[in-house]
Amino acid sequence: MSDLLTRNTDDNGITTLTLNQPERRNSLSMDMLDALSQALTDIEADGATRVVVLAASGKVFSAGHDLKEIRDQLDSQAFQLALFNRCSEVMQQVVNLSRPVIARVAGVATAAGCQLVASCDLAVAADTARFATPGVNIGLFCSTPMVALSRNVSRKHAMEMLLTGDMISATRAEQLGLINRCVDESELDEAVFTMARTIAGKSGHTLKIGKGAFYKQLEMPLNEAYAYTARVMAENMRADDAREGICAFLDKREPEWKDS
Amino acid sequence: MSDLLTRNTDDNGITTLTLNQPERRNSLSMDMLDALSQALTDIEADGATRVVVLAASGKVFSAGHDLKEIRDQLDSQAFQLALFNRCSEVMQQVVNLSRPVIARVAGVATAAGCQLVASCDLAVAADTARFATPGVNIGLFCSTPMVALSRNVSRKHAMEMLLTGDMISATRAEQLGLINRCVDESELDEAVFTMARTIAGKSGHTLKIGKGAFYKQLEMPLNEAYAYTARVMAENMRADDAREGICAFLDKREPEWKDS
Amino acid sequence: MSDLLTRNTDDNGITTLTLNQPERRNSLSMDMLDALSQALTDIEADGATRVVVLAASGKVFSAGHDLKEIRDQLDSQAFQLALFNRCSEVMQQVVNLSRPVIARVAGVATAAGCQLVASCDLAVAADTARFATPGVNIGLFCSTPMVALSRNVSRKHAMEMLLTGDMISATRAEQLGLINRCVDESELDEAVFTMARTIAGKSGHTLKIGKGAFYKQLEMPLNEAYAYTARVMAENMRADDAREGICAFLDKREPEWKDS
Repeated sequence: MSDLLTRNTDDNGITTLTLNQPERRNSLSMDMLDALSQALTDIEADGATRVVVLAASGKVFSAGHDLKEIRDQLDSQAFQLALFNRCSEVMQQVVNLSRPVIARVAGVATAAGCQLVASCDLAVAADTARFATPGVNIGLFCSTPMVALSRNVSRKHAMEMLLTGDMISATRAEQLGLINRCVDESELDEAVFTMARTIAGKSGHTLKIGKGAFYKQLEMPLNEAYAYTARVMAENMRADDAREGICAFLDKREPEWKDS
Repeated sequence: MSDLLTRNTDDNGITTLTLNQPERRNSLSMDMLDALSQALTDIEADGATRVVVLAASGKVFSAGHDLKEIRDQLDSQAFQLALFNRCSEVMQQVVNLSRPVIARVAGVATAAGCQLVASCDLAVAADTARFATPGVNIGLFCSTPMVALSRNVSRKHAMEMLLTGDMISATRAEQLGLINRCVDESELDEAVFTMARTIAGKSGHTLKIGKGAFYKQLEMPLNEAYAYTARVMAENMRADDAREGICAFLDKREPEWKDS
Repeated sequence: MSDLLTRNTDDNGITTLTLNQPERRNSLSMDMLDALSQALTDIEADGATRVVVLAASGKVFSAGHDLKEIRDQLDSQAFQLALFNRCSEVMQQVVNLSRPVIARVAGVATAAGCQLVASCDLAVAADTARFATPGVNIGLFCSTPMVALSRNVSRKHAMEMLLTGDMISATRAEQLGLINRCVDESELDEAVFTMARTIAGKSGHTLKIGKGAFYKQLEMPLNEAYAYTARVMAENMRADDAREGICAFLDKREPEWKDS
């Protein structure tokens, strides 16, 4: 585990991944992206994790790419393409991870940092948090961040953030659908971990089936989406947890998940 | 007409379909799905219906699948797949019906019941109504319901409902776009039937053209959507009702629809 | 430049295009569409324009198609198809224009007039503005307007506007995401031109890259969208403005754009 990123799993199976370079505004340098990618790969293989909380140390959730690193390699197109591809891979790892991922946003999330929030399945922010895609201010449009942003908020709102580069408040981010909820800073952990514990109490096998199918069916026409998800549900029914869950419900008792 | 489902058409051409098994929480058993499918087929062939209102008796709009029925056939994958496919067909019948369908939601709509609301063209709910996709609580993720849900609300909101299984209020459902409007319970019928009468006053031929084209163009890239809908409008212009409507508008008189 | 449409470019590179037939409710007649198309073609070739503001004279932003013109050609399907295709081309010219386009809406925008607002990248309206897609009232469903409308607002809200034909307020349009912001009528120009100036201060080359990629990636599945935009960002990095912007940011000075 890199120092850039800390990882801690509690008794409920909630793994908190914390971006831990506040002195560098938790920027998504190549090293940070590598650490995130490795952590997500490890979590995928790790039976103990049921839900992931993605957090950050300090006042900046993440400022996006490390501009110093980019300037140092200003003439290497190979490096730049590798960096943008690496970043896109990590965002897709979050989407494709079999466990739900909740962003816990206590500070400023900009550019690829905002993209990271948008890429999580869920996001809860302190009312002091703020969001922007300000690449246009430095001549480098937030083209990869907009992939995630435009799949979370309506196009006029996405365009306003992208074209003006202006910061929006957590309250506004909640209105736009970029985050699920904005809460008082003092209640952030309670809101995040209540949500995480609720989800951690479900069957992990069921969560895996559902999350995976969610993003796949979104990209299908309606009739294909139904043909696909009807098969997913029939397959889901073959699992012990669905049988246990249905019987427990009808018998009015708590289910005992085998996660299989 | 089955007792499970009542059907009544008023003088305005508004057909109210009422799920009528409150003692079984209006669950979408295979029998109920068959009754719904037959009713929708009949309505498609019935010249008298101009608008459909989908309602329910009792305090539960619909609790989704009948879990007892599923438990009774726990080892029959063939039955389960047939059930999920049947349910998906009925939802698509609502979408493909040539008449607009308005959900009138007075109680709790969960799982496939919530999906049914999401599948209607419009939905109005009492402020006491509530919505959830709680399959995750019984180990059976709401994978087919999420097809309709995720095409109505933004992905973080859909994911929150799907991963937590938590109930949301009608007020929240209105904010998220799952329903058009939430009104005081005492004003529900007025709100639903005012909307229904407004729509029943339009040319049925025009509504059919427009509703059909709406869902088709949604699944196309922009340039194809425009090429397609420009042809739809030119075709629409060949109908008597468009000619009558335009002339009546310019002559400042009420149009007389032939519905052809 | 036609009298139908006036064009003025200020010192900030903000070009205001004004629909200028208030006596004909700024309807999108074939002549008006031709004038708009020519103006957008000219702007694309014109180095001076950085941002476009689309405005209208009088109390009606635009009432959509000119119904008298349509009635005069009621038997010419060739004319009608040409008209709807021409209108669809102009809407796509707005989307494909390399400069951001902001709608400044001070009055009523209906049918293709509402579509024009929806087709702009951004829209700001006076609180007295109103919006509708009322084609259903004259037997001619707003099938081409709904292409733009349904890509801006959620489907139940789009369906309500399309099926009822009812007018919505600017406040409601803001809630639905059809416009970015609704302001007091007396503050409309300040709101529009502040936004326009903010955007005009960015690198035009960067805006062009970003706007073009935005609409393209929206129509791609997630993995293709990321592969595409990662290449777009790497290409963006080769431009002088990105290098200047990053260095200026790190050196804490204002960037000087070459727009190349």
